[in-house]
Amino acid sequence: MSKAHIHPVTVHFGDCDPAGIVFFPNFSRWMDQASLAFFRARGVPPWRELEATRGIVGTPLLEIRTRFLRPATYGDELQIVTTIESWADKTFKHRHRVLRGDELLCEGTEVRAFVVRDPDTGRLRAIPIPEDIKARCG
Amino acid sequence: MSKAHIHPVTVHFGDCDPAGIVFFPNFSRWMDQASLAFFRARGVPPWRELEATRGIVGTPLLEIRTRFLRPATYGDELQIVTTIESWADKTFKHRHRVLRGDELLCEGTEVRAFVVRDPDTGRLRAIPIPEDIKARCG
Amino acid sequence: MSKAHIHPVTVHFGDCDPAGIVFFPNFSRWMDQASLAFFRARGVPPWRELEATRGIVGTPLLEIRTRFLRPATYGDELQIVTTIESWADKTFKHRHRVLRGDELLCEGTEVRAFVVRDPDTGRLRAIPIPEDIKARCG
Amino acid sequence: MSKAHIHPVTVHFGDCDPAGIVFFPNFSRWMDQASLAFFRARGVPPWRELEATRGIVGTPLLEIRTRFLRPATYGDELQIVTTIESWADKTFKHRHRVLRGDELLCEGTEVRAFVVRDPDTGRLRAIPIPEDIKARCG
Repeated sequence: MSKAHIHPVTVHFGDCDPAGIVFFPNFSRWMDQASLAFFRARGVPPWRELEATRGIVGTPLLEIRTRFLRPATYGDELQIVTTIESWADKTFKHRHRVLRGDELLCEGTEVRAFVVRDPDTGRLRAIPIPEDIKARCG
Repeated sequence: MSKAHIHPVTVHFGDCDPAGIVFFPNFSRWMDQASLAFFRARGVPPWRELEATRGIVGTPLLEIRTRFLRPATYGDELQIVTTIESWADKTFKHRHRVLRGDELLCEGTEVRAFVVRDPDTGRLRAIPIPEDIKARCG
Repeated sequence: MSKAHIHPVTVHFGDCDPAGIVFFPNFSRWMDQASLAFFRARGVPPWRELEATRGIVGTPLLEIRTRFLRPATYGDELQIVTTIESWADKTFKHRHRVLRGDELLCEGTEVRAFVVRDPDTGRLRAIPIPEDIKARCG
Repeated sequence: MSKAHIHPVTVHFGDCDPAGIVFFPNFSRWMDQASLAFFRARGVPPWRELEATRGIVGTPLLEIRTRFLRPATYGDELQIVTTIESWADKTFKHRHRVLRGDELLCEGTEVRAFVVRDPDTGRLRAIPIPEDIKARCG
């Protein structure tokens, strides 16, 4: 498993719903931030550079699975601990653990693929995991 | 399985990311809309009424699992087909299928609980599924 | 002043904050939807087509001004009434009125420009208002 | 004018639209964060405490006005410089300046009021600016 990256998140008033707790899709949003921060911390350029140089437009999701254990509210300081759990030929799996101090609030996995835009159809399609990116994340 | 409810969604420009496709947490947001619309369509009052009359503040998530099969973009008209797949003592499971015409774009399950706010601690805790609500959704 | 376009919005649970009312940036989000819906209703193609054919990537904001008169909450059905108040050489001004039935909840103006991406620098820059688009909206 | 408070913001991929730039309602969202951070930095408790002790549920917006000078994109590190420009009997005006290094990207004002929930009607209504809070922000 890869070395973990830690992405800090402060919960804001507007992230919370009428029950006073984080509206849950924000956890997915923060995990997405944590995923990109993971790659950036390993020296992978931002997607707009990779798009210009190699046609890679990002790492869209194929599947997510998330368990919500405890709610969070505004003012909370969270840490998202992100690893790559496994690599397949054309996909990889992240694990994200969302902590508030020692408490685990939320845990999830994401299956993602590196995609390029097909020049003919304009559609996105998955490519084999780029070896140089995989090497940086090992 | 319960009768399906159909929740329409129009994808807007601001729902899409720099790759030009729906930023995936929006699918979770739309499924949340579809869940509440499901209950409203069966005659369940909005949460703020249930909070005033019975202390129920909503149905927060315990677990989500979503597969993303095809991307969507702005201008697309989607339909979310929502059912209750199963009831447990204190939880229930939704299934949501996101369609664009005949194409299945995204499919997921949500495990939720009805919660009340504990008057002493202020914390949210799950209650047994209210029988009258279950009866409406059968 | 142009003919008005009406854009319907349903307020959802996740659009509301811990005070139980719409988190105000959502009004800006809905006005943005209403702006694009205004142009689409007049036969202007979506931005991704205009980008491919004419390099126009959208109509970003130069200035917004919004007054919030009454709050809204989830379950509310809103109507956004959108017009073009004036055209300048390189900008135009929208007016949006957000109604719940007869009640005016929120009113605002937006100053926007049509922009293209400079092929050399990659930067966005405003172009003179395209005459054909202006003619459609008159 | 009050002493300025600086609120840092990192722009994320999901904050950006298909043109690759920040979707503008996010600037309003970040200014809202900056407003609450301003009060917290001066020792004002979070709204949920003020609601329990004094019935104050927050500081909703009466009016916003924002000028967008330059776009931002993901990876950008922003600073929001927030002051209180003036106090009236029942309202106050914030000024927010959004900077990327020395560049001013966006500037805006917000008129807000402290509100309580009327125990009879459940409606929100503005109260005179609490003197103790004003004194802390002077």
